[in-house]
Formats: sequence, C-alpha cells, structure tokens
Amino acid sequence: MDRDASRVETFSDGIFAVVVTVMAVELLQNGPARASGRELPDALVHAWPAYLAYVITFGIAGQIWLGHHNMWRYVVRVDQMLLVFNLLQLLFVATIPFTADMLADNLRGSPTEQRLTAALYFGTVLGESVSFNLSWWWARRRRLLHAELDPRLGRAIAWRLRLRPLLYLIAFAFVFVDPILSLVLYLVLIGLTLIRRPGDLPR
Amino acid sequence: MDRDASRVETFSDGIFAVVVTVMAVELLQNGPARASGRELPDALVHAWPAYLAYVITFGIAGQIWLGHHNMWRYVVRVDQMLLVFNLLQLLFVATIPFTADMLADNLRGSPTEQRLTAALYFGTVLGESVSFNLSWWWARRRRLLHAELDPRLGRAIAWRLRLRPLLYLIAFAFVFVDPILSLVLYLVLIGLTLIRRPGDLPR
Amino acid sequence: MDRDASRVETFSDGIFAVVVTVMAVELLQNGPARASGRELPDALVHAWPAYLAYVITFGIAGQIWLGHHNMWRYVVRVDQMLLVFNLLQLLFVATIPFTADMLADNLRGSPTEQRLTAALYFGTVLGESVSFNLSWWWARRRRLLHAELDPRLGRAIAWRLRLRPLLYLIAFAFVFVDPILSLVLYLVLIGLTLIRRPGDLPR
Amino acid sequence: MDRDASRVETFSDGIFAVVVTVMAVELLQNGPARASGRELPDALVHAWPAYLAYVITFGIAGQIWLGHHNMWRYVVRVDQMLLVFNLLQLLFVATIPFTADMLADNLRGSPTEQRLTAALYFGTVLGESVSFNLSWWWARRRRLLHAELDPRLGRAIAWRLRLRPLLYLIAFAFVFVDPILSLVLYLVLIGLTLIRRPGDLPR
Repeated sequence: MDRDASRVETFSDGIFAVVVTVMAVELLQNGPARASGRELPDALVHAWPAYLAYVITFGIAGQIWLGHHNMWRYVVRVDQMLLVFNLLQLLFVATIPFTADMLADNLRGSPTEQRLTAALYFGTVLGESVSFNLSWWWARRRRLLHAELDPRLGRAIAWRLRLRPLLYLIAFAFVFVDPILSLVLYLVLIGLTLIRRPGDLPR
Repeated sequence: MDRDASRVETFSDGIFAVVVTVMAVELLQNGPARASGRELPDALVHAWPAYLAYVITFGIAGQIWLGHHNMWRYVVRVDQMLLVFNLLQLLFVATIPFTADMLADNLRGSPTEQRLTAALYFGTVLGESVSFNLSWWWARRRRLLHAELDPRLGRAIAWRLRLRPLLYLIAFAFVFVDPILSLVLYLVLIGLTLIRRPGDLPR
Repeated sequence: MDRDASRVETFSDGIFAVVVTVMAVELLQNGPARASGRELPDALVHAWPAYLAYVITFGIAGQIWLGHHNMWRYVVRVDQMLLVFNLLQLLFVATIPFTADMLADNLRGSPTEQRLTAALYFGTVLGESVSFNLSWWWARRRRLLHAELDPRLGRAIAWRLRLRPLLYLIAFAFVFVDPILSLVLYLVLIGLTLIRRPGDLPR
Repeated sequence: MDRDASRVETFSDGIFAVVVTVMAVELLQNGPARASGRELPDALVHAWPAYLAYVITFGIAGQIWLGHHNMWRYVVRVDQMLLVFNLLQLLFVATIPFTADMLADNLRGSPTEQRLTAALYFGTVLGESVSFNLSWWWARRRRLLHAELDPRLGRAIAWRLRLRPLLYLIAFAFVFVDPILSLVLYLVLIGLTLIRRPGDLPR
C-alpha cells in the first residue's frame, strides 16, 4: 500500500485524455466536413477558429498534465483532503475545452464578447491553478511526499506554481488592449514552461 | 498475481473519467456558444442549469470515486461475483449525467416534472449505493480484503455505506416540499462526506 | 520487463470504458430530455428502446470485459501477433454500441429490418468471439502464459471460448421465430456466464 | 521512481482509446440508423464511407499504438523534452479520425477534393511520424532507455521509424493517379508492419 498515488494518476489521466481529444472529436462532428453550402477548400479555411481552439486546448491541457505528472511523482501517500484538491483541479481542467472554444469563436466578435469570453477562460485557468497550488501546499504540509525530495526543491516548485496565476492574470489583462495579443501571450507562457534546459525534470 | 484489483481500478477509473467529463463536453457541444438568437451575455446566464448539472455530476461522481478508491485499496483478490457487483455499480454510475441533467433541467418545471426527475435521479444513486454495499459485503464475507485490515474498520465502513441510501432517501423526500431544497440537501451530504478531520483516510 | 501485458490491459480498458458509457452519453444527448412535442412522462416511456440498448450494451461489453480480464491475467509475455489479435477483438467490441442500438431500435420494425439488424449484431459478437478464440489459441501455442497455469485449465478455457460463437448463433437463429425471444436468449446467455459457484474464478 | 514511463503510457493509452473508438461513436450518432427518408438496407449500404473511415482509423491508430507500445517498453526514465515530443505525437494522433473521415467522405468527390483531403491526411500522419522519430532519437541520445537494449536494435528501430514518413509520402503521391489506389497503399503499408515472423517483437 505504499505507492498510493498511482490510482489517482490513472483517474486524472483518463480525464486529461478526454479533455485533449474532445476538441478533435468536435472537429470531426461539427467541423468543415459538415459545413453545407460551401466548397470544401473554403470550408476548411473558414474553420480556422476550431483548429485554433484545438491547439490552445491541447497546449494548455498538455502543459497542465506535465505539471501534474511532475508533481505527483513525488507523492507517496494520499489523504482525503489531497484527493479533494485534486478533484477540484480536475473540475476546472474539464471545462477548458468549453471556455477555450468560446474564446476562439469570439476573437472577432464585439469587444464585450471578447472580454467576456476571455474572462471566463481566465476564470477556468485561475481556478485550476489555485487548486493545483492547494494540492502542493497540502502535500508538503502533511508530509505526503517522497522522503528523498529536497525541501529546497519543494519550495522552488511551490514558488513556480504561485507565479502561474499571476502570469495568467497579465495575459488576461491584455485582452483590453488586443484579444489576439492576449492569446499569443498565453501561448508564449506555455512555451516558456516547456522549453527548459534539456533533461531538466526536477529529481 | 497478488494485487488482482489493479485492473478493476483501471477499468472503473476509465468509466469515472468519462462520467465526470461528459457534462463538460455537453457544455461545449450544446452550451451557450451554440445558442442562436441570443446575445452572448444573455445566453451565458440562461445556461445556468447546464452549469449546475455539471457541478452536481462532478460532485456526486467525484464522491463515489473517492468511496470506490477508499474501499478498493483494501481489496487484494477478486472473484467473479465481486466483479459483477462492481459492474452493476458502474452501470448506475454511468447514468448519473443523464439523470442529473434532467433533474437540473426540470427544477423550474411543473411539480410532476420535478418529482419525476427527482425520483429518477434518486433511483440512480440508490442503485449505485446498493451495489456498492453488496461489493463491500461480499469482499468481507469472502475474505478478499487485505489481511491487515482491522475488522472493526471493516464494520465501520459497512455501516457508513449502509447509511448512504437512507440519507439519499431523505434528500429525495424533500422534493415534495421544495425541489431546490432537495438538491441543496444532496450537495450538503456530499460536503459532509468530504470534510473530515484532515488526513482521516482509514488505513 | 516481465509483466508485459499490463499496458495491453490499460489500453483495452480504455476502449471498454468508452464502449460501456457511450450509450449513457447517447441517452443524455439524444434521450427523452431532448424529445420535443411530448410531455415528459410520455417521452420517458417512449424512450424504452434507448434504455434497452444501454443495458444490452453494458451487459454484453461487461461480460466480454470479464472474459478479457480472466484470460489476460494469465498472459505474462506478449508478441506482435497476440497484440494484433487483441486489436482485432477490440475493433469488434467498439462497434457493439452501434449494432446493439440498431437492434433495439428495430425490434418493432418490419421482419426485414429485424433480421437485418439481428444479423449485423450477430456479425459483431461473432467477430469479437472469433478474435478472442484466436488470442487464447495463440497465447497457449506460443507459451506466452503464466508457467503455473494448469494445462487442463488452459484447455477448459479454450473449450468454453469455442462454445460461445455457437451459442450466439443459436440466439441469432431465433430472430426468425421472434426477435424479442432472440434478444432474451442473448441476455440469458450473459446471465449463464456470470452466475457460477461463488469465487469460481479460475486460478 | 525507476519505471517512470508507466504514467506516460497510461495517458497515451487513454488518448489512443478515444481515437480508435470515436469513429464507432460517430457511426452510432450520425450513422445509417439516423438516416431518414431511406429504407434501412439502402441506408446501411449507403453509409459505406463511414465504415471505411472506421476501419482506416482503427488500423492506422492501432498500428501507431503498436509502435508506441514497442518503443516505450524500452524507456525507463523520462525528461521534459521526451514528454513534449510525446505530447506532439499525440496531438497529431488525435486528429486522425477527423482527417481519415474527410478522406473517406471525398473518395468520390472532385479531383480537388480528393487531393486536398489526401494532403490533409498525409500531413497528419507525417506530423505523427516525425514526432515519433524525434521521441526515439531523443530517448537514445539522452540515454533514457533500458540499459540492456542492444545498441544495434536501437539503430534498427530508428531506421524503421525513419522509413515510415517516406512510405507515407509514396502512398500519398498515388492520389494523383487514383485516390482509391492511394488508400489501398496505406492499408498495405499497415499490413506490412503487422505481418512479421511470428513472435518477432524486438526484445
């Protein structure tokens, strides 16, 4: 009973797998192939917000999965509260396709629509980010982590996690300047988390 | 071949993952973004039963997953009958999005509609709860549990599981007073199961 | 690298989980709640073929999962051919919701519709059953099974697997007498496989 | 913490499971059973591109899963970059149902439609194939593989992986001759990868 976290990972992975693929299923079911009254080349070009929504969702959810993967490999025991924080994080993760799709659909809408959908999307990633912080804070406090984990590394991860909602807030604020710029900033943020020195997965 | 339960957990987790995310997919495919003839802010507000259905489904299914997780970690062997009871439980779990969605849709319907959908929802969680009780009863009787499990803890879990259908019945009965009150009671029940003394996961 | 089969089980379980839940998702998306022009109680009763299709699909796919679980626990090594046979079985498993739904929808159709959908459904379970037989035959022949498995048990399982397509054929033949009777026979067949002496999971 | 790859496999398997089943769900939701204004036998025959799309998707995704399974069993450690390459591969895998469906739908369309959908499909499998090559190249370079893996086997696998995009390119080029021929070539390519000397899974 010592590697308790493995079932939590299986369950979370199932949810992540549905979240990243659901936009591709959406492409299949409501995409250009179903568009009537248009020529195919035109329909394919016209569906660009759907492709964008797919890539944003995959990028964001993939990045969260990476973070989740990196954190949970240190968790050796779970308690009820940690499971609840993890469920809360997954509740927000599962709504990302919905808010990302609305964001992409309204990039060329009125300023009200742009800001409203950007605020909704920001709310989702903020909720996810806060729950993730709570998980890590709780796991450290209740000593649920691998005994070999360097406490300095634990603190460093906590700081990096705390930084994320702030960066999301800045990316969101730019929607009042330009919604495309705001989106580009989100994607740059994802890029920054991914590109590190090679092999730099905290051990 | 000694930790037989792990594949049962993988299979069950796959079903739980679909169940908790399907309402979010529903939001994406039939949600406010698809509502035509309305302004976006109006459409977003108008879709409140869909958000409610998502939160209820996630809450209920998440709580059942917690219970499933807490029970199955003691199971070291499985037999045919335990697998059948588990399949029966999952059959009811998978219908929760359907009945929760109907419940939320009819909160402002006629009294007949309110009571009918509440009865359907109650039938689902009752069926789930009874099958769960059967699983635990069978696992204890056939000695499929971890040898180190304290028999008193086994009995305590059995009593807690038996209490659940009763509490669900009470929450259901309040639909004849007020359907919103009945729903609030369900959510309070979930809250009660989640909030315990920190770290109080039976070992 | 000695317990090679575990990833095959994870992949197969993902497919089984989608298959058993997809009919419940179908209930949610195209079920009575979406039926327009009818009163709710009437719509709920009118949707009986959808409930039937859900229970048949869950029953059949659940039973196949049980068989898959019982077989693969003896597999310790895999080779390319066994993986291909397993993929072939899953290809048929994934079409069960489609054919079971058509079967249930056409129970009250014309004799041609009844027989055509019954033949399609029979084709699906036959294909599944034959691929399953191939898997077991191959695993035994190539000595991919647990060394402790009693050869007599291996033969007994092979015989039980060979019997299944025959029983399916009989259940199918009854569609020419009465389609409901044919369906009842399928469900009785599932029941027979499930109910054994308690704990009688071959070890 | 030594068998790091197992969570990556669980997550990838969840995505593969959705990808191979989504076309069967599509059959259920938009297939012949929903076709109105046609007799059932006629509707069933008329839906042949949907069956074809299902078999192509299952075949291609199943083959990629086999390759993924065969590669990842040698991976004992993961780093950030390998996870990113794997996510990139999965991003392309998840779009296969979408492009395969369009390909099958336009087999009898105008030459422009045939070539456009063939090019899209080719783009998907090319992207998948290139990311897969990157994964294997990185895993070898950073010594993330099992120490017992024969370096000659590692090189042989790398060569086989490099060959695949080339073969896909040839199959694609034939769309300018005949789109059906191009599709047959893809299926022959899958067949070639599957049929080897029995038991010839690199150890």
